[in-house]
Amino acid sequence: MLSKEELNEFLKSEFPQTKCSVEDVGNRCATIRHKIGHEELRPGGTVSGPVLMAAADVALYVTILGEIGLVSLAATTSLTINFLRKPSQKKDIIGECSLIKVGRTLVVGEVSLYSDGDVEPVAHVVGTYSIPPQK
Amino acid sequence: MLSKEELNEFLKSEFPQTKCSVEDVGNRCATIRHKIGHEELRPGGTVSGPVLMAAADVALYVTILGEIGLVSLAATTSLTINFLRKPSQKKDIIGECSLIKVGRTLVVGEVSLYSDGDVEPVAHVVGTYSIPPQK
Amino acid sequence: MLSKEELNEFLKSEFPQTKCSVEDVGNRCATIRHKIGHEELRPGGTVSGPVLMAAADVALYVTILGEIGLVSLAATTSLTINFLRKPSQKKDIIGECSLIKVGRTLVVGEVSLYSDGDVEPVAHVVGTYSIPPQK
Amino acid sequence: MLSKEELNEFLKSEFPQTKCSVEDVGNRCATIRHKIGHEELRPGGTVSGPVLMAAADVALYVTILGEIGLVSLAATTSLTINFLRKPSQKKDIIGECSLIKVGRTLVVGEVSLYSDGDVEPVAHVVGTYSIPPQK
Repeated sequence: MLSKEELNEFLKSEFPQTKCSVEDVGNRCATIRHKIGHEELRPGGTVSGPVLMAAADVALYVTILGEIGLVSLAATTSLTINFLRKPSQKKDIIGECSLIKVGRTLVVGEVSLYSDGDVEPVAHVVGTYSIPPQK
Repeated sequence: MLSKEELNEFLKSEFPQTKCSVEDVGNRCATIRHKIGHEELRPGGTVSGPVLMAAADVALYVTILGEIGLVSLAATTSLTINFLRKPSQKKDIIGECSLIKVGRTLVVGEVSLYSDGDVEPVAHVVGTYSIPPQK
Repeated sequence: MLSKEELNEFLKSEFPQTKCSVEDVGNRCATIRHKIGHEELRPGGTVSGPVLMAAADVALYVTILGEIGLVSLAATTSLTINFLRKPSQKKDIIGECSLIKVGRTLVVGEVSLYSDGDVEPVAHVVGTYSIPPQK
Repeated sequence: MLSKEELNEFLKSEFPQTKCSVEDVGNRCATIRHKIGHEELRPGGTVSGPVLMAAADVALYVTILGEIGLVSLAATTSLTINFLRKPSQKKDIIGECSLIKVGRTLVVGEVSLYSDGDVEPVAHVVGTYSIPPQK
């Protein structure tokens, strides 16, 4: 299993433009933070949907890497998001991911997204990743 | 909030052919059981996909009714199921549902489905229900 | 590619209790019919959601078999259904499926479900199937 | 119904940072283009998943506005994406959207995403939007 520091280094080197960082990583779970600034907002004073989807995608990705290691070229195969509440424009987005299946070729995980500090989630995501066969 | 007994009576009177019963009901959550017999199986000795979807649909339905009462004509608007593991053909299906949003017009919930007694889920479902406006 | 007759024979022998039959099969597409009787209805005089999900599942399954042959043990990995309109209780359900990706290990297809003879769909489904590696 | 020019003006004024433009708009359908540059790529030389999700979200949004007018505050309630093929890093993303239900409170649409000029889609999306009650 990879540490939070290793995952953050990997994110920074592979996705230098990302605004996500890993806050915590555990057994088949991880928590990420997506910084929210002016660029992430949309009319109405809220975080745009694609930003939430990007946060969930990163949350799933680092949780899977934390579980299976950096060697793998995991690729998202599907993602379903339900938007639940209007996110605050003044708070970062926190994504809490847990894997519900880690198969040989397919991983399924879910992510709850929150405005930092809030109790009720702003969105819920289920995603599947395919894992290429290891030699 | 409705009791388990009230929900089971409602299920039996409204859906006389159902093989589901309510095992437990709590705050925005409920557990149901779907009896598994020969009719619910498919080739390969496992529970058919549509049976799992039906179990999840009932789990969502009774959890919502337990929350908002029997008067409402809640209707499923969407449902996403991920199949995770092969269910046992000898065990009932247990569905554990919790609601992640209870809005005025839309309710979102998730269901984990298990072969009775097993720790790992056989499927995971997210569903949305529309609630007709109350007069 | 398999014929409509071969697919119907396969359905009858493998799923003797199904109420679905294949109406048409083409290049990466197929049309099925799900008979609707008293057992398929729910309170309010409409076809139950699980019946629509079962019809979509069969539509995807036979379309995939028509494409890759009967030898394969295709298994549903995920399914998303959106319920669009109230189906008629007096009409069969027609499912029109087309495959949008046929990969080596994953097939993705969509299904539009209609009350027989109606122009507007009652539900829309996207499903993914995993194809076990062939020897 | 709104014209392509009206929709593009609206996009530019409301979402000044978007890289999407409307190519075509018709009866319950529209086509958009998402410019692809260095920022939209991810390791492996392909378009990142969140960019595809953003393109689909805009495609759904402008198609709905084209249908119901600019007054509405339509909000995405759910979105399911299936990734089908690796997009080209050298081609814009084209999104073709069509609405499959336009209800009073809920709109459902689907989007096929392509690398510009290619025949096979790189992703498929189904999304639902809620329409706030009009006074």
